[in-house]
Amino acid sequence: MARANVKGMSDQESAGPAPSATGGFGRAGRPVRQGALRGHNLGLALRIVAEAATPVSRARIAAITGLTRATASTLVDTLLAGRLVREVELPRTSRSGRPAVGLVLAPGGPGGLGLELNVDYVAATVVDLTGSVVFHEVVAADQRLLDPPEALSRTAALACAGLDAAAAKGVEVCGVALALPGLVEPGRGRLLLAPNLGWRDVDVAGLLRREPRLAALPVSLDNEANYAALAELASGPQEDAPDFVHLSGEVGIGAGIVLGGRLFRGSRGWGGEIGHVTVDPAGPPCSCGARGCLEQYAGQEAILRRAGLSGSAATSLGGEPTIRLLVQRAADGDADLLAALADAANALGVVVAGMVNLLDVGTVVLGGIYGPLAPWIQPAVEAELAARVLWSAWAPPRVRIATKGPESAVLGAATSVVSGVLADPATWLGRGTLRA
Amino acid sequence: MARANVKGMSDQESAGPAPSATGGFGRAGRPVRQGALRGHNLGLALRIVAEAATPVSRARIAAITGLTRATASTLVDTLLAGRLVREVELPRTSRSGRPAVGLVLAPGGPGGLGLELNVDYVAATVVDLTGSVVFHEVVAADQRLLDPPEALSRTAALACAGLDAAAAKGVEVCGVALALPGLVEPGRGRLLLAPNLGWRDVDVAGLLRREPRLAALPVSLDNEANYAALAELASGPQEDAPDFVHLSGEVGIGAGIVLGGRLFRGSRGWGGEIGHVTVDPAGPPCSCGARGCLEQYAGQEAILRRAGLSGSAATSLGGEPTIRLLVQRAADGDADLLAALADAANALGVVVAGMVNLLDVGTVVLGGIYGPLAPWIQPAVEAELAARVLWSAWAPPRVRIATKGPESAVLGAATSVVSGVLADPATWLGRGTLRA
Repeated sequence: MARANVKGMSDQESAGPAPSATGGFGRAGRPVRQGALRGHNLGLALRIVAEAATPVSRARIAAITGLTRATASTLVDTLLAGRLVREVELPRTSRSGRPAVGLVLAPGGPGGLGLELNVDYVAATVVDLTGSVVFHEVVAADQRLLDPPEALSRTAALACAGLDAAAAKGVEVCGVALALPGLVEPGRGRLLLAPNLGWRDVDVAGLLRREPRLAALPVSLDNEANYAALAELASGPQEDAPDFVHLSGEVGIGAGIVLGGRLFRGSRGWGGEIGHVTVDPAGPPCSCGARGCLEQYAGQEAILRRAGLSGSAATSLGGEPTIRLLVQRAADGDADLLAALADAANALGVVVAGMVNLLDVGTVVLGGIYGPLAPWIQPAVEAELAARVLWSAWAPPRVRIATKGPESAVLGAATSVVSGVLADPATWLGRGTLRA
Repeated sequence: MARANVKGMSDQESAGPAPSATGGFGRAGRPVRQGALRGHNLGLALRIVAEAATPVSRARIAAITGLTRATASTLVDTLLAGRLVREVELPRTSRSGRPAVGLVLAPGGPGGLGLELNVDYVAATVVDLTGSVVFHEVVAADQRLLDPPEALSRTAALACAGLDAAAAKGVEVCGVALALPGLVEPGRGRLLLAPNLGWRDVDVAGLLRREPRLAALPVSLDNEANYAALAELASGPQEDAPDFVHLSGEVGIGAGIVLGGRLFRGSRGWGGEIGHVTVDPAGPPCSCGARGCLEQYAGQEAILRRAGLSGSAATSLGGEPTIRLLVQRAADGDADLLAALADAANALGVVVAGMVNLLDVGTVVLGGIYGPLAPWIQPAVEAELAARVLWSAWAPPRVRIATKGPESAVLGAATSVVSGVLADPATWLGRGTLRA
């Protein structure tokens, strides 16, 4: 799990130690100052601990980084004081009578709070620095019936339950990441557009911070498909620099694109809007204002509507997630639902084949509702890929089910917070009295 | 032009000088050896000359790199001896009586030979190190009537004409890059598939090297859309880290995707196959074996066919490029052609909008035949983007005409060769007696 966290990190995992501060240069040819150098090396030491499968000695950190033992030991002391790592006793070796001490990530240090506000539920997850989940709760409720302040007030209440649960386990939440089913303004904390919520230009971070316990925490926002892909990157098969597209099937449909082991977000973070790729230019109207978008064929509500389950079924759930009902009815052989799923799968397969032709990505991951619905979705998607991807004869695209279910977005959001600490521990350590 | 070349380079443009050889580390944390260090610094000095708008002094190279004047001067001497740079006299300054000497890229040094073998023509271009074209020739001929050995033999003959013209101008061709309308096997010199040529699994590089004058030169292959995008990157508006998709409209349709100033090629270099994105799953059969691909609506032959100009028109050209006939007839108001162009533009716009939703790219560049056909294509593409791109209200995608015409692929191929020299001059310099 620790290793997985590191794989999800953004920018620094391949950096070596910073060269000497005098005359040394960082990656982009800029000189590295002393403070930044220490921060760089702190991060390097922490990631060596995070990436290791077994506890790491101080000597090993010195050997890997090329730093002196004294310097490495000082870095480790700082990480210990900041509760980012803890010491564990290693088995005695034959050559020494003293017990050796190894370092592992500290489960009781900083943690990340992930939130998700989606069309028909809100969710909160807290993970500790090792990536272990210490709190997870989902509340099924149609957010379209609420205005943004009300919806975010309820989300904040769920967040507070997460903070309490984390505190009870000794985890200090150091940041909040909120997954949203729409376009987020880069770096601003605003939601530009969430067609399926009917929201436009909402100061989501500001509304969330009306809750005093969240006001002091850094808040990040991103599209839920991006966070879901990060969760899949962390928990999926551990390949070297994996390429995949994770499909988040919900009421809307998003694609989280991972290329070479990194999330591809496009120039402003708006990429992956596969739900609004056109299936039929003259098709049914979409919430986005266009016609014939994939969501109108393969989104959860489109499937319900085409199966004649709209309204009645969706409102008779009594808090049960809609997807359970869909799986049950499909397994029971509901003919209308099976026809709707076949249409959904064909449309999804045609659009995904087009995406693969554009992106040259090797693997398609069925996430969200497409995971549990895979028995009725996957064969048609594979058939369309085989028929339509130009290189399918040489290198057939793989299709697999996501390792995480619909909770992947909120988990990925929570993980992104602790990934930030692993990437830059100095900023976290410098927040209070530990500032050097 | 020199600056533009550098922008098209692959990997090294943002690298600073290598840190000291003892204890220094390269970007990925690996130690840098002495020979690699010299190569790194040679490239750095050469790129400073290439990127500068005016001649660069040795002192300036020392100042930018942080190297000593003596070291910088030794590097410059090596570049001069290798005919990569030449000295020009600078205007006298008031403070010194001596004429100062500046450095510019050498026009008479190594050059790149670009070739393109496309469905209805072959082309060759030679550029010198400054990116200036010293040879360009296009031969209109239907390559589908030839088998691969015959087609590549004719391409090689055209290449030899380019070598002769370059030699007459003192340019030594140091590599060949061949643009193809299909999928190239990564790193192998083989063409996997070119649906519009009807070719599968052809040892293109081997066939080209049957010509003895090409046998000794390194040969690279890539999809023509990728090379065309590189040419657009080099010659288009000089922005910082531009994002665009360059559409290569030919008989087939390719997309060259540039993100953050770099060509995005997908995991195996097969990305950008927009011509095989589906418009209608039940549409006309495509050369790739699927149905309803974009090429069957918006490719050159599809437009001719839908306009009733197939065969007769295409064969009555007498060597005149088909695109001139199309533009003439469209300008004359040929109703069938205008209807075909309207259908092509709508299909293209719908598919491009889907691509923008996936990639979050800000600009679409109409290249190949879409440049001259822009009066009949661009408005409909813009309308579909406005209607279908999720963020068009906040950040409307831009559509512009390519700065280069159908020759962009062969030009980009030629430029890629000299970009390789600029990125790694040590390898070029080390080819013979200059090896250090």
